[in-house]
Amino acid sequence: MSEPRGPGRRPGRRPGISDTRGQILTAARTIFAEKGFDKATIRGIARAAGVDPALVHHYFDTKEGVFVAAMRLPMDPSVVVPYVVSGPREEMGERLVRFVLNLTADPQAREPVLALIRTAVANEQAVAMLREFMVEAILGRIAAALDIPLLRMEAAFAQMFGMVMGRHILRLEPMASADPEEIVALLAPTIQRYVDP
Amino acid sequence: MSEPRGPGRRPGRRPGISDTRGQILTAARTIFAEKGFDKATIRGIARAAGVDPALVHHYFDTKEGVFVAAMRLPMDPSVVVPYVVSGPREEMGERLVRFVLNLTADPQAREPVLALIRTAVANEQAVAMLREFMVEAILGRIAAALDIPLLRMEAAFAQMFGMVMGRHILRLEPMASADPEEIVALLAPTIQRYVDP
Repeated sequence: MSEPRGPGRRPGRRPGISDTRGQILTAARTIFAEKGFDKATIRGIARAAGVDPALVHHYFDTKEGVFVAAMRLPMDPSVVVPYVVSGPREEMGERLVRFVLNLTADPQAREPVLALIRTAVANEQAVAMLREFMVEAILGRIAAALDIPLLRMEAAFAQMFGMVMGRHILRLEPMASADPEEIVALLAPTIQRYVDP
Repeated sequence: MSEPRGPGRRPGRRPGISDTRGQILTAARTIFAEKGFDKATIRGIARAAGVDPALVHHYFDTKEGVFVAAMRLPMDPSVVVPYVVSGPREEMGERLVRFVLNLTADPQAREPVLALIRTAVANEQAVAMLREFMVEAILGRIAAALDIPLLRMEAAFAQMFGMVMGRHILRLEPMASADPEEIVALLAPTIQRYVDP
């Protein structure tokens, strides 16, 4: 689960070759910050980057793909979330906790996620971007797949988000150093209750 | 629960009268930010404010009292937490969720709490201050009163902290506008499970 990075990888600049992909990502960061996730469009990002929209589709496929690459997130939820929620229903709580723990286990994969949280907490515009991406690309998708109200999925998110904040931003002990299996044992029944129909 | 403010109130400046209390609070904010909560002392704060330590005790009683006033927090946990955890054990989950919801219900009472979170998330020094205060003044005290491992109390904190972030910082809908009773119904069983022995 800590593997799938794909388009999130930042290419090294090759001198002499114009970095169209990098131009698109720079433009995307500006557009997402200004407009949020919902109102940003591939057309608008292409215009800001001075390239054809077809090129944005070529590099990143979807708007989510652009976002994931622009924010250097360690996974594309449109790929990973359907996999996570396709398992047995009675294991869903555990799968979701493991998913979040794996996503934040590797410091290099975790840092862009923490950076996005830090930016959003300090900044009114960035918070819209994070909120809309969370609801549209992750929470809404899981709630729909599991056929539960979005509020229940947001309660589950609140538990796991608080755990990530506690471990990696506030660094509360003993939570910060706790073995992932101990966290799974504590949190999985909570998440299972929220996702049960 | 949204009432107890006490020493957190900021006095209006009365021209002609030297604002010793304000001087102490200004010094305290510097000292807590520099040293964190654990290493700050009433003696050190008094020295930075250029007053006698007895005067700090006179105005604020304890180090926690200084912190609560300096950060303009809406309640002093050394007063409120023992009250909350003194209720029936089987209602503890609900009491704790209501406690956090009440604390953050009034925008004026909530704002200093959110300010403290925002500062801590963006700032390595401030995070030590918030972490140490959380563990020493709130979570450790509750865990001790309920005789549960600190890790379980931190899991409960993660759930409630995530809920406050979701409602008031990320403003995730429908969670942000949900009726407090709906939040209690969702979260109280989670917190109850963590605080059960």
